Amino acid sequence: MNYPFNENKELDLIAIGRACIDLNANEYNQPMEETMTFTKYVGGSPANVAIGSAKLGLNVGFIGKLADDQHGRFIEKYMRGVGVDTSNMVTDKEGHKTGLAFTEILSPDECSILMYRDDVADLYLEPSEVSEDYIQQAKILLVSGTALAKSPSREAVLKSVSLAKKHGVKIVFELDYRPYTWTSPDETAVYYMLVAEQSDIVIGTRDEFDVMENVKDGDNNETIKNLFTHSADLVVIKHGVEGSYAYAKTGETFRAHAYKTNVLKTFGAGDSYASAFLYALVSGKDIETALKYGSASASIVVSKHSSSDAMPVAAEIEQLIGQGEYVKIEG
Amino acid sequence: MNYPFNENKELDLIAIGRACIDLNANEYNQPMEETMTFTKYVGGSPANVAIGSAKLGLNVGFIGKLADDQHGRFIEKYMRGVGVDTSNMVTDKEGHKTGLAFTEILSPDECSILMYRDDVADLYLEPSEVSEDYIQQAKILLVSGTALAKSPSREAVLKSVSLAKKHGVKIVFELDYRPYTWTSPDETAVYYMLVAEQSDIVIGTRDEFDVMENVKDGDNNETIKNLFTHSADLVVIKHGVEGSYAYAKTGETFRAHAYKTNVLKTFGAGDSYASAFLYALVSGKDIETALKYGSASASIVVSKHSSSDAMPVAAEIEQLIGQGEYVKIEG
Amino acid sequence: MNYPFNENKELDLIAIGRACIDLNANEYNQPMEETMTFTKYVGGSPANVAIGSAKLGLNVGFIGKLADDQHGRFIEKYMRGVGVDTSNMVTDKEGHKTGLAFTEILSPDECSILMYRDDVADLYLEPSEVSEDYIQQAKILLVSGTALAKSPSREAVLKSVSLAKKHGVKIVFELDYRPYTWTSPDETAVYYMLVAEQSDIVIGTRDEFDVMENVKDGDNNETIKNLFTHSADLVVIKHGVEGSYAYAKTGETFRAHAYKTNVLKTFGAGDSYASAFLYALVSGKDIETALKYGSASASIVVSKHSSSDAMPVAAEIEQLIGQGEYVKIEG
Amino acid sequence: MNYPFNENKELDLIAIGRACIDLNANEYNQPMEETMTFTKYVGGSPANVAIGSAKLGLNVGFIGKLADDQHGRFIEKYMRGVGVDTSNMVTDKEGHKTGLAFTEILSPDECSILMYRDDVADLYLEPSEVSEDYIQQAKILLVSGTALAKSPSREAVLKSVSLAKKHGVKIVFELDYRPYTWTSPDETAVYYMLVAEQSDIVIGTRDEFDVMENVKDGDNNETIKNLFTHSADLVVIKHGVEGSYAYAKTGETFRAHAYKTNVLKTFGAGDSYASAFLYALVSGKDIETALKYGSASASIVVSKHSSSDAMPVAAEIEQLIGQGEYVKIEG
Repeated sequence: MNYPFNENKELDLIAIGRACIDLNANEYNQPMEETMTFTKYVGGSPANVAIGSAKLGLNVGFIGKLADDQHGRFIEKYMRGVGVDTSNMVTDKEGHKTGLAFTEILSPDECSILMYRDDVADLYLEPSEVSEDYIQQAKILLVSGTALAKSPSREAVLKSVSLAKKHGVKIVFELDYRPYTWTSPDETAVYYMLVAEQSDIVIGTRDEFDVMENVKDGDNNETIKNLFTHSADLVVIKHGVEGSYAYAKTGETFRAHAYKTNVLKTFGAGDSYASAFLYALVSGKDIETALKYGSASASIVVSKHSSSDAMPVAAEIEQLIGQGEYVKIEG
Repeated sequence: MNYPFNENKELDLIAIGRACIDLNANEYNQPMEETMTFTKYVGGSPANVAIGSAKLGLNVGFIGKLADDQHGRFIEKYMRGVGVDTSNMVTDKEGHKTGLAFTEILSPDECSILMYRDDVADLYLEPSEVSEDYIQQAKILLVSGTALAKSPSREAVLKSVSLAKKHGVKIVFELDYRPYTWTSPDETAVYYMLVAEQSDIVIGTRDEFDVMENVKDGDNNETIKNLFTHSADLVVIKHGVEGSYAYAKTGETFRAHAYKTNVLKTFGAGDSYASAFLYALVSGKDIETALKYGSASASIVVSKHSSSDAMPVAAEIEQLIGQGEYVKIEG
Repeated sequence: MNYPFNENKELDLIAIGRACIDLNANEYNQPMEETMTFTKYVGGSPANVAIGSAKLGLNVGFIGKLADDQHGRFIEKYMRGVGVDTSNMVTDKEGHKTGLAFTEILSPDECSILMYRDDVADLYLEPSEVSEDYIQQAKILLVSGTALAKSPSREAVLKSVSLAKKHGVKIVFELDYRPYTWTSPDETAVYYMLVAEQSDIVIGTRDEFDVMENVKDGDNNETIKNLFTHSADLVVIKHGVEGSYAYAKTGETFRAHAYKTNVLKTFGAGDSYASAFLYALVSGKDIETALKYGSASASIVVSKHSSSDAMPVAAEIEQLIGQGEYVKIEG
Repeated sequence: MNYPFNENKELDLIAIGRACIDLNANEYNQPMEETMTFTKYVGGSPANVAIGSAKLGLNVGFIGKLADDQHGRFIEKYMRGVGVDTSNMVTDKEGHKTGLAFTEILSPDECSILMYRDDVADLYLEPSEVSEDYIQQAKILLVSGTALAKSPSREAVLKSVSLAKKHGVKIVFELDYRPYTWTSPDETAVYYMLVAEQSDIVIGTRDEFDVMENVKDGDNNETIKNLFTHSADLVVIKHGVEGSYAYAKTGETFRAHAYKTNVLKTFGAGDSYASAFLYALVSGKDIETALKYGSASASIVVSKHSSSDAMPVAAEIEQLIGQGEYVKIEG
């Protein structure tokens, strides 16, 4: 089963939201109190997806706001360097800073992030800085949930969603939930539901869907039942090492398993998944194959130091799909 | 042509939003710099509609947040006194104040308002303070646009709209645009369109619809064409002394004329219109008659000192409909 | 014992700080929930003292910031009308509002005030809006403690105090403590002490001196012992109906009694006291007589409806001093 | 000429203010856009002085507020490790972050800093978190000007200054001007003058004294004339490579020259100067010798990568004083 896109659109994907700096501890498996040096990478979920998709060969654009400083200029230059169209990335003129994420890798599965996101430039993207002409050129608008956390970025995203619907651009909603910045579970649920109900494809972990629904231990069937009464026709729900499920409105369900890998850290798994999954869909592969691309890409990135710079090219993914081994799940 | 409501609902109407204080200059036709005394009334569009509907005999409730002070207690007591159910009006515990509107009547058609709305209690209504049990008891949820101007009131309204849709409660959106509090035309248009697209009935002046669409000199046909592709089946657009138009999704258009009256001030016209129009619809009158109720009620209120206390009873309205004269429009 | 001023200065007194609106309930002896009409007066401690002093014949100026609205224009016009030089009152251009005080008179000695002081224009006076040329023309700079509650008004006052010291202008500090706006007792004490230590005359109630010292049930002797080691040479401490004490650095102590009157409300007592006390000092009367002027003026104002409009002329005060009777204190 | 301290005090020096993180680019002489790795150090002027003084053998304490995160814990542990008493460093409980300074070394004399100081934990030190018992134990209270930039840290410092005066603790004011956080030159000048007038020793660059006086190209003689009418008896004004001047109230002037060194970056020069200068004074050396200690320590630190970790021990300083060569100044 293939997923249909409007083939007349020039750009394969436009991502909207944050592009930030990750400062990854160079020393692994120790608390950040003891790490002394950090390496700088571009970060932020939608920036990572844009970079990952561009490296896979898609024609990618980005809408966002950068700080007018050395970090902002580094981000723009890096993204342009991997082939992302940065013509719609605007520069903040009010002194806001670049978001930072210091990562701590205590062990492969105890990772934490020390965030600097108060009043960061990306949250100051204005609705008037979103161009209708630009959005209508894309097959996909990729929306990251974190960009909904605060005004005016929130309204810029709501406007872009409305423009995408008007022009037949498929809306892909990466839930990408980060508790930072949000003021209450109620507020989060209100905006997540608003955008999810207007999206064609919704991707997230089960935990993120729970946040969207403001429930505990939610049920996939309830989730898709509700979303399919609105705009969605494809819902991808990820369950960690158990793998992920893609539910089509047509009734089919697909499951993908995680590939065995040497896990260094868990960061960047979701973004690499999304970029490879969307690459495969846009390239005309069927949903089942696209899920494998997502899984393989995630397995590659979690074994490396960065979330953006480590994004694989297609050959790496295809090799892992061809020769890789699934993580075995008991029971 | 009648408008269908769910007859099993106990409450005719629940209004959500602000309940404030009007301080009306006792001296007319002079600048406020020279007025020395003021009379205090309950004010705020949704409070006025709730009071007006309750005085006409509807079973009315209110969802809102009041300051924990003398003004807040006055409002609750007054509304309860005219029959509004105030069980879902919560009291702010963080020191926010009651909104104030000092009115200046330079001449019958040069009225202005000096607003105190920074950080007022009504804008601090939380989504968690909106009760699903309460909303599902109503035939109508009346939403006032001003309550969308700021978080968390904005999210409380978005949540109530979502709950109303879930439980078959008709959503009536009174655009009620006040520039105060909004930060940009883009932001306003984003939220007005979001709610309008989910509403069953949308009521406003032509100027307010222009704000919603972020256009100048908008066109009624364009407006209804767009809204009818979403949830709306009745759109009322008011054109001042030229009267108002009601457009039904079924294709019919109705027009109402303004009744001659001795205009003292223009405040309160919209709220009295909405309360009598909705009263008539709920009472089973046809749309054309309901428009007359709206016009007659507005004509009565603009000839009196307050916007809330002056709300007429049904007999007054019916007498004016029976004996009143229309304002003549040239051409 | 007389108090020396620099006789070469053209203006007798410049007050700095807030000029606001009082909305006094026209109905007495009932809760504000039940009062329906309000009369508008100019209010705010330093504005009241300026008005009171000007009505007594002093040459008075004012430094402050007014809202750009009807209330702001009313204040400027009223103050100019009673003879205050308003050339250094600037108009806010950022949309800040005029402070409001709704007064409630439950009984002659149970008065309360409902304040609107969030982000009011007077607190936005900038240091750059304080003119050195203007301040040096005055015999007295009257500072009101409330103007220290928030930046940038706080820095504007600290700058004016520094300029006054530089030019031999006597600094009179009216403690005028209002809990509103201050964020902690520590913060209040820090700034009250800073200014008190630089002032020539400090006036306040015993309760206000306790706030300044961050103590409970403070002792007058401790207070003056500390202040006299800094700049002060005259300290006036008021004890309500027990009367007030003036302590001179030279060692003398003077006591004044309250005059019998028909108390309507307690508002405005302090401001009328200060204006008549300073008027008498500047007019060359000795400290003991000046205290009587203060007491008499306060007795007159508490028997009337407003705090500003009711400020007496000199003849009224002198008549009461001549014929009035002291309140008797037991014990 | 020696400088007298109260020898009965147990602690030599208590510094108050910020303790932050420096992230120093590991690659020199290139724009930060191109540097990829950073090393983490403790930073912030008063923390550097405390660390420097402790390494020289003084008995040092610190009053400040740390973020409740990995960076905050790193700072406390590091400072404790070099011998600073951290018992009066409190932990923020409201989610504020550690201040960051990314340093860029374009060339030895083109250094810039990318600051993250919005709402950082150190600016949230409350007056109530300053202990009178602690302050009275010190010979010196070292105040850094940056801690005056925002409330409540501003009031905490003003309170500590007042307590120091009360208990005969010498106040040393390191101007340490950073434009970040301050809202206007007027505001800055108001608080710098307030503290300078109460300080015993004032240290800064000529540029910083200009900021304090809100003038351009100010004059050392004017500066000391004014400060000596208040509390100061020693004023140190630094003129970069031209060396520094120490002016004593007794009329003597001392000059120190800079020592030749291999300059890597200019950061940290002032803090190393202050720590060695104060160490020498407290150790009973005369002012002229103390100036040499300051110059030598600065010369050592500017040749190394960090500002804190590079603080020298006394032997290094004494060796440079013994064998070093002065920078020659023309004319």
